[in-house]
Parts: sequence; structure tokens; C-alpha cells
Amino acid sequence: MSQISWFTEAHQASGSSIGFRVEKLLHAERSAYQSIEIYQTTDWGNLMVIDGCVMLTTRDNFLYHEMMSHPALFTHAHARRVVIIGGGDCGTLREVLRHPEVERAVQVEIDERVTRLAEQYFPELCEANADPRAELRFDDGIKYMADCAPESLDVVIVDSTDPVGPAEGLFNTAFYASCHRALRAGGILVQQSESPLVHLDLIRSMRAAMKKSGFRSLRTLPFPQPCYPTGWWSCTMARKGAELTQFRERGAAAKRFPTRYYNADTHRAALAQPEFLRRALGE
Amino acid sequence: MSQISWFTEAHQASGSSIGFRVEKLLHAERSAYQSIEIYQTTDWGNLMVIDGCVMLTTRDNFLYHEMMSHPALFTHAHARRVVIIGGGDCGTLREVLRHPEVERAVQVEIDERVTRLAEQYFPELCEANADPRAELRFDDGIKYMADCAPESLDVVIVDSTDPVGPAEGLFNTAFYASCHRALRAGGILVQQSESPLVHLDLIRSMRAAMKKSGFRSLRTLPFPQPCYPTGWWSCTMARKGAELTQFRERGAAAKRFPTRYYNADTHRAALAQPEFLRRALGE
Repeated sequence: MSQISWFTEAHQASGSSIGFRVEKLLHAERSAYQSIEIYQTTDWGNLMVIDGCVMLTTRDNFLYHEMMSHPALFTHAHARRVVIIGGGDCGTLREVLRHPEVERAVQVEIDERVTRLAEQYFPELCEANADPRAELRFDDGIKYMADCAPESLDVVIVDSTDPVGPAEGLFNTAFYASCHRALRAGGILVQQSESPLVHLDLIRSMRAAMKKSGFRSLRTLPFPQPCYPTGWWSCTMARKGAELTQFRERGAAAKRFPTRYYNADTHRAALAQPEFLRRALGE
Repeated sequence: MSQISWFTEAHQASGSSIGFRVEKLLHAERSAYQSIEIYQTTDWGNLMVIDGCVMLTTRDNFLYHEMMSHPALFTHAHARRVVIIGGGDCGTLREVLRHPEVERAVQVEIDERVTRLAEQYFPELCEANADPRAELRFDDGIKYMADCAPESLDVVIVDSTDPVGPAEGLFNTAFYASCHRALRAGGILVQQSESPLVHLDLIRSMRAAMKKSGFRSLRTLPFPQPCYPTGWWSCTMARKGAELTQFRERGAAAKRFPTRYYNADTHRAALAQPEFLRRALGE
């Protein structure tokens, strides 16, 4: 008999919580970096939890993965080389590799166990792992970016956990300066930037650090993400030596791969700034 | 000493839950129609709960109230007469009355206790209740719409609870036919239409019933709403004898009243259909 209960993440900083009804715990371990749990839910497919925080569910991860990848790749004129920092579930890598212009995509995840568990419990996200253009490295993303050859990349996607613990060093000027140096002119950094409603201070400090590191144009794109605190999330794009106001609208409208949230219209929509965000960010 | 605990709404249909950290229960009663509770939260201001379902918080209700009113009013060329069915917290009424072209706005809430408690615990939402253009009626909205003079209204806003209990009769062809008859040509019906992610069947059946009742053009607008299941909500607009593809963009850009979410850009953005919704609704 299955035992129905709830997994609930209480998000202390915002005084709110989100939970999922679960049928059973499928796996639990403490890796070298963090605790990882996988649950089977009643309505959301499988659920991955890291250090008590919901990372993804089968049902709603398409929102996050599509918005972390397609806006940047349809803004860049022709992105050949992409690096993903974090992203161990491989969902962002899969979306990146849908773009035929991408010649090489390197995923630099610090914790190999996240990827091994994704292969087992979220196999659909790992579909592109065997693509000859993909390279999966298990390494420190901060060090990887610091060691990158200058002007060697077109897009860097920072798909990390919250700015505490292992991911803390991915939200500061030193890291952004490494990204800026590694990008070619016109290159784009995109990073998950938490909830527009309750993490406005973090978004502002990320943006200030990105500017300080030499990025010229910034844009914060909100999108729905039910499994994260407040159900409303964002990514922030920063561009080297070029603006972020335009994207390849015709390319996006004529894309030859399937998506579930992203299209040319939702891309344009994500560039709209809610009034409070516009005022807070001075845009 | 205050006692910190959590109020959590477990949404059985979607197998997910949303909770808020609360400091104390400020009020609880059983009205003639439903149970109503008011909590003081640590981070979201006051919280109103009806029959166990979160209705609104001080912190995030602006999203819902602005999106239930301004898109319809900036689509209509000149809305003089507006009726709100439900809307007992008066937040939608306040937003409607920000529009100077509105000559009369009638709120028809079945449960007077909701409004009396809003006056006490959400006074900012009731700021416009004394406006000479406002009329607060405590009556059955289904009967009110059935008795309305034909072609007497410009906008009808259905700001109700979920389609169970007292609000069930607000989601069917008979009610929509009353709304259609009461609207003038070019008139707009707008109704809260639940979560795009988990209530797609409801959205489809609402839209089918609206079409059957004579509405020509339909549009479902998604928007973030952290306190409702999945944190992602929608309203559906239906128009009599005119299209919904355009709105008064210049009017919206030059509006002379404050908003926190709504502006011309977010209005345009709400008209973008996520790929899965576009396919599901055949748009």
C-alpha cells in the first residue's frame, strides 16, 4: 500500500511554503556536497529536493529550462559555444542542444550525483547527453570560468541552486568578471535570479555586480515556476558589448523544435517589466 | 507572546499546497454562506481564507486585482457602466474606479460579511467604497445579471471564488447568456479562470460556454498570483460583437493612476499565449 503524505518546503525568508503530495520517497542520499532526495508525487511526476529545497518536478520544469535557454539563444546572432554552470539535471543542456547553430555545449556541474540521479529519475531531461556536441564535466564552475580562454564563448548559462552553500560564489563580481572575460563580443550571460516579488534585493545586487564586471546591457525576465517560492521566478541576462532590447523574432517564430512555454510571443512578453520591477530596476 | 505557525491550503485537485507563516488568527466566523478566517502573517500582511481556500493577502493581491480590471477597461473604448459579480474584498472595485470614464460601478457580492471584514482588515482595498460612482449590493449575482436591463452595461467582471459552492452557477451557459444580454455591443465579460497549468479543462469548458452564449472573441490572460494554487493564474475575457486583439495602448501608457503590476507592456505580455496554452485553446 502506498503511503500518501506531503513534502513541503518552508521558505523562511519569504514566510511562505510550497508543497507536493507524495506517494513515496524513491531515493535519499548525502553526496559530497549536499543532501539529495527524490520523491514520487501524485500529480507532478518525480520531485528532486536538494538540502530541503525543491529543485524540479517532472511536470513543471519545462518553464524554467525553456526560459533559461531559448531567450539567450534567440537573442545571440549565432551562438556556437555554450557553457552551462550547474544544471546537473541536464534539462537546460537538452534545450540548448535543440539549437542547430550550437557546436559545443559544456555542462559544468559540481555534483556528479545530481546528474546520475537525473539520468535515473528524469531520463527525458537527459535525452541529449549523448549528443556529440555535449560535454559533461563534474567540476567547480567558479574555477572553470576563471580558467576559460578569453573571448572563447558565446553564451554562459548559470543554472544553479540558491545563493547559499555551494552556489554562493556564483553571485558576485569576481565570477561575473570571469564570465565577461570568457565571452566574445555580443556574448550573453544568463543566470537564474530568484523571485521578482520576494528577492528584489538579490536581483538588484546581482545586476549591480554584473554592471561592475563590464556587462553593458541587462534584462530581468520574469516567468511562472510553480515549484519555486512564490511560484514566480526570473532569469537575468547580461550582454557584453551589445544591447539586449532585440531578439531574433523571426527565428523564434520559425523554430523547428518543440517547446511548451517558449515561443516568440512569450519571449517578447518576458521582456515586459511589471510596473514595480521597472521602478525598482530603474528601467 | 505571539505563536508562530503556518496556514497551509492543500489543493487536492492538483496535489500541491501553498502556505503562509502566520502570527495569529485575527478573526474566524461562519457567515450565512461560508466560513471566513483572517490571519496576520509574518511577511504577507493579512490573509483572508474562505472555506479553507486562500482568497487574498495584503502583499500580493495587487496582481489579481489589477489584471481583473485594467486589461478589460483599457480594451473597451469608453466603459461607462461596470458590474462586478463577487469581488467582496472591494479590491477590483477600487481599480475599476481609477478609470475616470467609469460613471457607475456596481459590486454584487452575495456575502456582506466578506466586505465588512475587508473594511476592517484590508482597509486600503476599500478606499473607493465611498466614491459616489460606487454601489455596493449584497445580493445573488446570478439573479442580478438575469434581471439586468438588456444592453445596459459595458463591462462585467466576475471576481468569484472557485467553481464549487456559491460560485458554481457563475461558470455556465445560463449565466454567460445573462451577461451577454446585459452588455452593449463591444461590451466585455472578464472572469477569473484559475490556473493555466492545472485547470485547463475548466478554462476550455468556460470558453466553450462563453462562445455558446454568443460571445464572439475570447482571450485568456495568464498572470502571476503567488497565493493561488501553482502561483500562476488567469482571467478570461469575452467580447460581444467585437474583437479582443487590440487594446488602447496609448491610453494604458499614459494612464494617470498608480499600478504595481499593470502597464501597457504587461498588458501586451498577458496577451501572449504560452505554447501549450495556444495549442490547447486552438489559438
